[in-house]
Amino acid sequence: MSEFRSDPISGRQVIIAPQRSARPPAGGTGGGKDLQGREGRDPGPAYVESCPFCAGNEQMTPPETMALGRSAAVRDGRGWKVRVVPNRYPAVERSAQGQLTAESSFPSGYGAHEVLIETPVHNRHPGNFPPRQMELVIEALYRRGEALSRDPGLRYLQFYRNHRREAGASMEHPHSQLVALPFVPALLRRELERSQDLYLSEGGCPFCRLEEEENRFGQRIVAQNEGCSAFIPAAARSPFETWILPRRHRASFLETTVYERAALAAILEEVLGIMARALGDAPYNYYLRTAPLRSPPLPYYHWHLELLPRVGVNAGFEMGSGVYINEIAPEEAARFIREKGKREHEAAPRKDLLYSCTAQPPACGEPGRGL
Amino acid sequence: MSEFRSDPISGRQVIIAPQRSARPPAGGTGGGKDLQGREGRDPGPAYVESCPFCAGNEQMTPPETMALGRSAAVRDGRGWKVRVVPNRYPAVERSAQGQLTAESSFPSGYGAHEVLIETPVHNRHPGNFPPRQMELVIEALYRRGEALSRDPGLRYLQFYRNHRREAGASMEHPHSQLVALPFVPALLRRELERSQDLYLSEGGCPFCRLEEEENRFGQRIVAQNEGCSAFIPAAARSPFETWILPRRHRASFLETTVYERAALAAILEEVLGIMARALGDAPYNYYLRTAPLRSPPLPYYHWHLELLPRVGVNAGFEMGSGVYINEIAPEEAARFIREKGKREHEAAPRKDLLYSCTAQPPACGEPGRGL
Repeated sequence: MSEFRSDPISGRQVIIAPQRSARPPAGGTGGGKDLQGREGRDPGPAYVESCPFCAGNEQMTPPETMALGRSAAVRDGRGWKVRVVPNRYPAVERSAQGQLTAESSFPSGYGAHEVLIETPVHNRHPGNFPPRQMELVIEALYRRGEALSRDPGLRYLQFYRNHRREAGASMEHPHSQLVALPFVPALLRRELERSQDLYLSEGGCPFCRLEEEENRFGQRIVAQNEGCSAFIPAAARSPFETWILPRRHRASFLETTVYERAALAAILEEVLGIMARALGDAPYNYYLRTAPLRSPPLPYYHWHLELLPRVGVNAGFEMGSGVYINEIAPEEAARFIREKGKREHEAAPRKDLLYSCTAQPPACGEPGRGL
Repeated sequence: MSEFRSDPISGRQVIIAPQRSARPPAGGTGGGKDLQGREGRDPGPAYVESCPFCAGNEQMTPPETMALGRSAAVRDGRGWKVRVVPNRYPAVERSAQGQLTAESSFPSGYGAHEVLIETPVHNRHPGNFPPRQMELVIEALYRRGEALSRDPGLRYLQFYRNHRREAGASMEHPHSQLVALPFVPALLRRELERSQDLYLSEGGCPFCRLEEEENRFGQRIVAQNEGCSAFIPAAARSPFETWILPRRHRASFLETTVYERAALAAILEEVLGIMARALGDAPYNYYLRTAPLRSPPLPYYHWHLELLPRVGVNAGFEMGSGVYINEIAPEEAARFIREKGKREHEAAPRKDLLYSCTAQPPACGEPGRGL
């Protein structure tokens, strides 16, 4: 039997419909393997000659914006641990000279689009980075955010990661991206408005309250550390959608301390490892939600990260109505990944955390939403 | 150079970024074929023994709700042209007895979920139906909508179609679907509010105005007939997003006359044929937007159909920001599909309009949005 749920902050509506997971997989053939049925995949080579993100191939990218792990004096040389370069095919550019309109104070097409190369090693899975590697990634993001926020023409910072081809990645070398926009996206404006409404009507930051409630309830928790909680929200759009919420109230990621960022890095790496083990390295996307650049500290908003493993397809129903059908109850999904993510962690060698985009996509236990 | 655009009615923001189409295709290998590079695919068999939607297999579905093309006396027998059955794996059910909450006047999980089997023949492509077949599909939708609107517990009707596995179809036999919900989705409420705002501030239905403007401008038109216009909206989310707008102002699809529905059927079939020829039978989704059930005639809303061929992937950037990156300017995309959709139509045999979900997915000219 289905259940209607809605997310209090975004207003998103979801139909939890466990009975639908019994139907045939999307498509006429293939599919149908369950979540346990995944094979370990070939991790692929540590170095690829044609990959512009591999150590040694620094000349194949545009000149670097910054690098961590080696002296800044050696620009575009080896020895870095995390490297940031301009996107060669940028969606927005700081050189944009597009038309100014009556409503806009910025040229059309203005912005920045950068790539964070997360490791010099081609086949290092972000769920199995060496110690402190993820901290460096988050630190690079923070520093680039700081630098870009000094451009008064920029208003919002979108950090995101696409994992594997099926999730939109065009390069297999581990990387995330950063787009700085000269406007606050309408989606963010709505989220800010709704948060403020809840703050005014109920008192207190709605995200702080959510974090406390999820910890108290416990059944949807995926991971916890001193600084952050990771849980599947009650009105998750898809079975394994996971939010990482910092415990300390901060509206903007750029207000965080180095300890808070280390807590994010630690829980992010832990969650990615759990997901890789439980879901057979399924493709995923994650993105950061944060207050607009140069906002004063807002009492009603709270930066956080949202992770969406790609199991299932958003199809005509979701597109048309904006209502999502989720075939696994979040409490059930959290229990599944906690168990499955842990059990293999203790038993299996960590080879399963290396990945290669050229390998077969996993068959998903929760297939397309066709019928 | 990129260009920012936004859709006046939905408020959706888009970055038109043609320079990004030069980057490598998503994933480490494969892809990269251009739009012209598709092969004709095997249409597959006209009858599949295990397919519950094929003529002769009527006993494999739940008892039919209605059928067109044969006498209603012969329930669940052969001879039908379009058949409507309950979805065997419903997202919502009229038997739902879920909890009533303070905010809701309906039980959780309440609704109807039905399948419109569009043809008795397994491999008939909807871009190449026999004469009047699409009219029967639209007529079946209309009659089911009429019937469901008499249930005072239902508030919204979502009609949609998922074409091929990659677009979320779990059955390859041509079919579309209908979900009736006991609430008006938040997305619709927002669209209604924005339309009303525009109506009040500018006078006249914003959709009527859009239809006139697109016809005057002409460069984004895909197809036209007496009753409808099909065009790529100026702020399209993806290259070939196409809207079908009826010329006659009606807020609800259920207010239409039989002539208006015939015009929709004709242009929908034409557009699907154009897309199939131009894009190598790419997967797609379409859905109908219409006023809530039992609304009085609203002067500011206007039912329409939105079609989204699946080229490219919505990835972390789109999910995080709600802003879409579209790599082909709509004017350019419309020119491309008008030419390409027409040229092959005159030259090639119509075999290319038959399809099979078991065949290989097409390589897309506009691949994932990774980098």
